[in-house]
Amino acid sequence: MPADRGTRTQPAAAPAPAGPADFAALDALVRPRSVAIVGASDDPKRIGGRPIAYLKQQGFAGAVWPVNPNRPTVQGLPAFASVAALPEAPDVAIVAVPGALANEAVEALGARGCRAAIVFTSGFAEVDEAGAAAQAALVATARRHGMRILGPNSLGLFNAAINFYPTFSTSFEQGWPLPGRIGIASQSGAYGTHIFTIARARGLGTPICIMTGNEADLSVGEVIGWMAQSEEVDVIAAYAEGIRESERFVAALDLARRNRKPVVMMKVGRSALGAHAARSHTASIAGDDAVTQAVLDEFGVVRARTTEEMLDIAYAATKRIYPARNTLGVLTISGGAGVLISDAAEALGLAMPPMPEAAQAELRALVPFCGPRNPVDCTAQVANDWPLVGRFAESVAADGGYSSIIAFFTQTAGSRTVGEALREQLKGAIARHPDRLWVLSAILPEEGRRRYEEDGFLVFEDPSRAVVALHAMGRFGESFARAGQTAAAVPLPEVRLPGTTPSEAVAKRLLAEAGVPAVPERACGDAAAAVAAAEEIGYPVVLKILSPDILHKSEIGGVLLDVRDAAGVRAGVATLLERARERAPGARIEGVLVAKQIAGAVEMALGITRDPVFGPVAMVGLGGVFIEVLKDFALHRCPLDPAQAERMVRSLRGFPLLDGARGRPKADVAALARALSRLSAFAAAAGPRLRSVDVNPLLVLPEGQGCYAADAVIELAEG
Amino acid sequence: MPADRGTRTQPAAAPAPAGPADFAALDALVRPRSVAIVGASDDPKRIGGRPIAYLKQQGFAGAVWPVNPNRPTVQGLPAFASVAALPEAPDVAIVAVPGALANEAVEALGARGCRAAIVFTSGFAEVDEAGAAAQAALVATARRHGMRILGPNSLGLFNAAINFYPTFSTSFEQGWPLPGRIGIASQSGAYGTHIFTIARARGLGTPICIMTGNEADLSVGEVIGWMAQSEEVDVIAAYAEGIRESERFVAALDLARRNRKPVVMMKVGRSALGAHAARSHTASIAGDDAVTQAVLDEFGVVRARTTEEMLDIAYAATKRIYPARNTLGVLTISGGAGVLISDAAEALGLAMPPMPEAAQAELRALVPFCGPRNPVDCTAQVANDWPLVGRFAESVAADGGYSSIIAFFTQTAGSRTVGEALREQLKGAIARHPDRLWVLSAILPEEGRRRYEEDGFLVFEDPSRAVVALHAMGRFGESFARAGQTAAAVPLPEVRLPGTTPSEAVAKRLLAEAGVPAVPERACGDAAAAVAAAEEIGYPVVLKILSPDILHKSEIGGVLLDVRDAAGVRAGVATLLERARERAPGARIEGVLVAKQIAGAVEMALGITRDPVFGPVAMVGLGGVFIEVLKDFALHRCPLDPAQAERMVRSLRGFPLLDGARGRPKADVAALARALSRLSAFAAAAGPRLRSVDVNPLLVLPEGQGCYAADAVIELAEG
Repeated sequence: MPADRGTRTQPAAAPAPAGPADFAALDALVRPRSVAIVGASDDPKRIGGRPIAYLKQQGFAGAVWPVNPNRPTVQGLPAFASVAALPEAPDVAIVAVPGALANEAVEALGARGCRAAIVFTSGFAEVDEAGAAAQAALVATARRHGMRILGPNSLGLFNAAINFYPTFSTSFEQGWPLPGRIGIASQSGAYGTHIFTIARARGLGTPICIMTGNEADLSVGEVIGWMAQSEEVDVIAAYAEGIRESERFVAALDLARRNRKPVVMMKVGRSALGAHAARSHTASIAGDDAVTQAVLDEFGVVRARTTEEMLDIAYAATKRIYPARNTLGVLTISGGAGVLISDAAEALGLAMPPMPEAAQAELRALVPFCGPRNPVDCTAQVANDWPLVGRFAESVAADGGYSSIIAFFTQTAGSRTVGEALREQLKGAIARHPDRLWVLSAILPEEGRRRYEEDGFLVFEDPSRAVVALHAMGRFGESFARAGQTAAAVPLPEVRLPGTTPSEAVAKRLLAEAGVPAVPERACGDAAAAVAAAEEIGYPVVLKILSPDILHKSEIGGVLLDVRDAAGVRAGVATLLERARERAPGARIEGVLVAKQIAGAVEMALGITRDPVFGPVAMVGLGGVFIEVLKDFALHRCPLDPAQAERMVRSLRGFPLLDGARGRPKADVAALARALSRLSAFAAAAGPRLRSVDVNPLLVLPEGQGCYAADAVIELAEG
Repeated sequence: MPADRGTRTQPAAAPAPAGPADFAALDALVRPRSVAIVGASDDPKRIGGRPIAYLKQQGFAGAVWPVNPNRPTVQGLPAFASVAALPEAPDVAIVAVPGALANEAVEALGARGCRAAIVFTSGFAEVDEAGAAAQAALVATARRHGMRILGPNSLGLFNAAINFYPTFSTSFEQGWPLPGRIGIASQSGAYGTHIFTIARARGLGTPICIMTGNEADLSVGEVIGWMAQSEEVDVIAAYAEGIRESERFVAALDLARRNRKPVVMMKVGRSALGAHAARSHTASIAGDDAVTQAVLDEFGVVRARTTEEMLDIAYAATKRIYPARNTLGVLTISGGAGVLISDAAEALGLAMPPMPEAAQAELRALVPFCGPRNPVDCTAQVANDWPLVGRFAESVAADGGYSSIIAFFTQTAGSRTVGEALREQLKGAIARHPDRLWVLSAILPEEGRRRYEEDGFLVFEDPSRAVVALHAMGRFGESFARAGQTAAAVPLPEVRLPGTTPSEAVAKRLLAEAGVPAVPERACGDAAAAVAAAEEIGYPVVLKILSPDILHKSEIGGVLLDVRDAAGVRAGVATLLERARERAPGARIEGVLVAKQIAGAVEMALGITRDPVFGPVAMVGLGGVFIEVLKDFALHRCPLDPAQAERMVRSLRGFPLLDGARGRPKADVAALARALSRLSAFAAAAGPRLRSVDVNPLLVLPEGQGCYAADAVIELAEG
C-alpha cells in the first residue's frame, strides 16, 4: 500500500450505534403531525422565528407549538412557557436556543417523550474541543431518552409535500421547492440549499431536503437509507465532506440498490488540499478518499464532481430508465456535434455500436450523402423535408435498438419557422419507443424546452453533458442488475493470530491456511531430505543456505538456481555447505531451503489496511513501479468474492500485462482473484488486531498454473 | 512509437500553398466595401436570398450587387445579368449557385478582378471522389486568378460591427450578435453557429464568426492568424475536426501568442470513434490527435472538451488578465464550497497557497471560528455584519496576493434583502484591486448578474466551472511569458542519408554524428586490438562474438559480461573464439566486439515518426511497458531545443523513475534532453525520406554520467 495516502484522523465524536437504521425517527422528522419550536422568536428573521414564519406562510397542516417563557404568543400563535407545558409530546422539536441551553432543551424534550429533534444550535464539535465535549453530552442526553437528533449545527430540513419547513435557510427567496421525486441528503446546510436553489432554477423538483450538520447522531448515510425506502423519493442526491460511520452508510447504499433508487453523490475533499479544508472547517473526518470511492463503486453510486453534473444526472434519473447494457445512438443535423458526442462517449466507455448494415442502406436511400453509421448524420437536407427526421429517428430507435438516444438539432429545434414541424416528427418517434432514454440537445427558449419535456425528452443544451448523464443511467442499470444476482457468500476462515507480529514464515503459513498459497518450500537438514523435498515440490528447484546468521545469502554464493534433478540437489547441497563453511565460518548452519523455482510469473502486490471508517480494505496492484509511482491500484472493503476480486484486477491500468500484452502468456487471473478474495476473507475474520498485510510479490503464473506468495508481512496490534 | 495510434489518411485535397498568410484577402472577406451575390434569389428564405435579406435588414453600408440573369431586381435591389455586367470588381463575392455552375462563377469572378469568394455551394470533397475532383478544379481556377476561397460548402461568415452577414445561417432567429471582442473560427458551419447562438444566449459578444467549410483554400489556421493580428478580436474561439496544413496553422498560433491573444480550441475527433465519424462526414483528414495536442500545447492553446468549457474560458479571457504565475484565493461563505473548489483546483494543478500567518491571525480576530487559511471561510457570521466581508476580501487580495480570486456567496449575493449590502463590500475590494481575476460564484437573477459584471466580476454559478476557466487564464499567461523568451535556435546537423535503410551500426553512427551518443564499442580482429579498445573505452567492458552468421550470441555463450582488466580481455577473447569454433562450427568469425558495460541505467525509448500534417514528430517515453501498455509518452514537432525536450520528459507520468523514485539515483535528465533535442534536429535536417527512427533502449545513467543509445533503427523511403 503506498505510503503517501495520508494519515487518518480518528472521528471526533462517537459514531451512531450499530444496528438497523431507525426509519421511524426519520418518518417523525420528515412527516410529523406536530412540531415544537424551543427558542421560538416573534421576529420572523431570527433563527428561532424563521421556521414559524415559513410554516404559517406555506400552511403546514400539523400543530405548531412555539416554546417561549417570555411571551403569550409568538408570531400570532399561542406560545408555551416550557416544554413541560406542551399539550402533548410533539412528534418533532426544533431546538433553536443558545449553545449553553441546548442540552437542557434536549433533556426536557426527552423527558416529555419527544422522539426526534432538529438542533439548529451551533458552537459544538465544529469549533473546538470544548464544543466536541458539549456535543458528546448532548448526544448522551438524547440517547438516554431514546431520542434521535438531526445536528447540532444543522440548517434543518424541508418536506414541501406537507409544507413542512423546519429550517432557518433564506434560500426560498427565489421560490419554494417544486413538486418532484428527487431527495437531497446533505451534510452541509449551505451547500444543501445551494443545490436546492440551483435545482429549482432548472425546474427540478426536490421537495425533500435533509441537512445533517455535525452528524452527532443522524448521518447522511441514514438519511440515504430512509430515502431509499421512502415512497416520496425516486432519486437520491447526496452531498458529504466525510463519511462518519460505515455500517448504516453501507446498508443504505445496499438498500437503495435493491430498491432501484439511484444515488448520485458529491463527496468532496478528494484532494489533499480539499481534505485539509474539510478537516479544518467542520467536525467531519476526512478518511481515505480512495476507500470511500471504492465503496461508492461497489454499490453503483455515481460520484459527481460538480453540482451541475449531479443535477444533470438526477434530472436524467427521474425517467427511471436504467439500462443494464447501455448503448448510445446519436441522430444529428451537424456532423461536428456527432464527432464531439462520439469523443465524449468513448472517453467514458459508453458504447456506440454502428447501425445494422441494412438500416444504413435504407437511410442512404433516403438521403444520399447522410452519415448512416452512428452517429447518424441526417444532414441539413432534412430541412427541405421534415418527415425524413421522423424516418431517421424511427430507424435509430427500431433498427439501432439503442437504449439511449441523443437527437442533436441545435437552434433548429427552437426555430419559430420550422421548430414545430421538427417537433412533430420527433414526438412520433418517442411515442412509439417510450422505453428509451431520449435526449434532445438543442438551444431552446424556456417554453420550447417545456414542450419537448412534455413529449418525453430530456433536454440538454450541451450534448457533452447529456453524454455524462446518460452514461450514469447505464452505471445505475449495471449496478441494479448485479444486486439481483445472489452474491456468493464469502466463507470466512478460522484465524488464530499470534500474540505478536509474526515472522515471514509464520505469516506465509497463516495466509496459506486461509487460502493464499505460498511458494512451496521445505527446510531440510541434509541432502537426503533435500532430495525428497525436491521430488515432492517438483523440479526445477532453488536451493538456499539456511542460517539465522547469514542475511544476504547471495553474497556468499548461498543461492543456487535451476536445479533439475536429484544428483543436482545432492551436489548443490554439498556446494552450499562448503561455501558456508569457507565464506561464513562462524555462522550456525541449519541446513538448506528447497523451494519451487518460479519463472515467467507476473509480480503482483496484495495488501490489507484498516480504514478508520470502513475497516479492513483489500488492495491489489502490479508490483514494482505501478503502485508507488503510477498510483495504479484497486481497493475494496473486506471480504469480497472472487468475481468482485476479478473486477478489481481488471480495472487496473496495467491489466494488459496480465492479459497477454507484449507477447507474454496470459496470467492465471482466476487464481489471482481467488487469492485476493481469500486474503480479504482472512482480514475480515482476523478482527481489529490485524493492522495490515503485505503480500509482495505474489507471483502469478500463466493460466492454469496458479499463483504463489513469495513474501508476506503481517502487522498486528499487541495481543 | 505505439503501433495502435491509427493509420493516417492523406489529405483529400492539396493543402494551401506555403508562404506568408494572406491577411489582405481576409480583410476583403471580413471588411469589404462591396459584395456581389452570384446566384442571388428574390426569396429571402433561399440560400441565395438569405444573405441579401440580412444585409438589407441590418443595414450593411457597402454596395450589395445581386447577380441574376432572369430578374431586373432581387429583393428590391437592382440585379445584374452577369458578373461581367457588375459596375466594378466586388471586394468579395458570394457563390450560391448549384454545384455544376460554381467553377464557372469563380472563373467569371476571377476574370472580373474579384480577389475573394465565399462559396456556399456544396457537393464537393465532402461527398465523394468526383466531388473532390470538382473541388480541385475550383481551387485551380481560383489560383489562376490569384483569388482566395472560403469553402466550398461554407456557411459563410459574419462581421456584426459593419452589419455584414454573407451567410445563409438561420441562427439569428434568437437574436443578432452582441458587441464584444471574441472571434469564432470554425470549420463546421452548423457547429460554428451553434457556438455563436449559445454565446449570445449567455450575453457574450462574438461579432466576428468565420466558417471555413471544406477548406479547399482558406483554413481555420489562416483565420486564426488573421484574428491574431486583427484589431477587432482579443480572444479566439476555434473549432476544427482536423488540421489540414501545418505551416500557416503553426504560424497563426505563434502570432497569436506573440500578440497575447488567447486561443481556446475545440478540436474534436480525439477518440477512435470520433475520428472515424469525422472522416466519414467531412472532407477533413483526421491526422493523429496526439500530435495535434502536442502542437496545441507547444503554443499554449487551451483545448476545451465542451462548448460550455470553451465559452467559459473565452468569457474569462475577455478580462485580458493572463497571470504568468497563477494562484487562486477563495473567499467563501460555505465551507463545503471551499472544499469543492480546492478539489477542483488541485485536480488541475492550480496552486492555492495559504494566506500569510499574520493575516490569518487578523481574520481570526475578526471572526473567531472562521477558516482563514485558503479557502478562506468567513462563515455565515458575516450575515450579521456585512463590512466583515469587505475586510476579508481585502485581506485575500492584499495579504494573500492571489492573481485569481473566487468569492462564493451562493444565493446570498442575489438576495433581495441583503444582496446589495454584500455587493457594496465586494465592489470596494475589486475597485482597489482591479488587476486580479475576480469571480463571483453565486445564484443570481439576470439583472443581479449584470450588476456584478459591471462592478468587474466574472460571474459563474458553478464554482467548478470557474476554476477551469481561471486555470486556463494561467496557462495563457505561462505561454505568453515563454513567447517573450528568446527561443534558442536549434542548430541542424548536416545529414547524408544512405540510399537504403541502414544497418544498426550505420544507424547508430549517423545518430552519433548528429549528437545522440551510442554505447561506445569497437569491432576488434584479435586480442591485442580488443585490449587496446577496452583500455580506451574504460573497464568494465562487455565482450561479444562478432559474426554475420551468429544471430543469437548468448545461445552459444557468445557474450561475456563484467570483464575488468587486460588479462580478462585476453582470456575472454580466447574463450569466445573457442566457443564459436565448438558451438557454431560453420560461422564466419570476424573477431569480437568490445563495448562499454552500462549498469544502473534507466531504459528510455526515443522515436521519430512522420505526421502527414506536421512532419517529423519526436517521441520520448520510458522503456518497457510504459509506452505500449500505459500509453505514457510525450510528443513534439521537430526540431525542439533542450529546454522543450526537458519539459517533455518531465511531463511523463513515469518521470519519478528518472527523478530518484524507489531509492534510485537521479538520472541524467539533462543528457537525455540533449539527446532528444539532437535527435529532433537530425529528423528536421534529414528531410522527407526519413520515415522513422527508433532508439530503444536509450540507457540513461545517473546525473552527470550521460546517456547512450544501445540500439537504433532508421527507416528510409527509397533514395
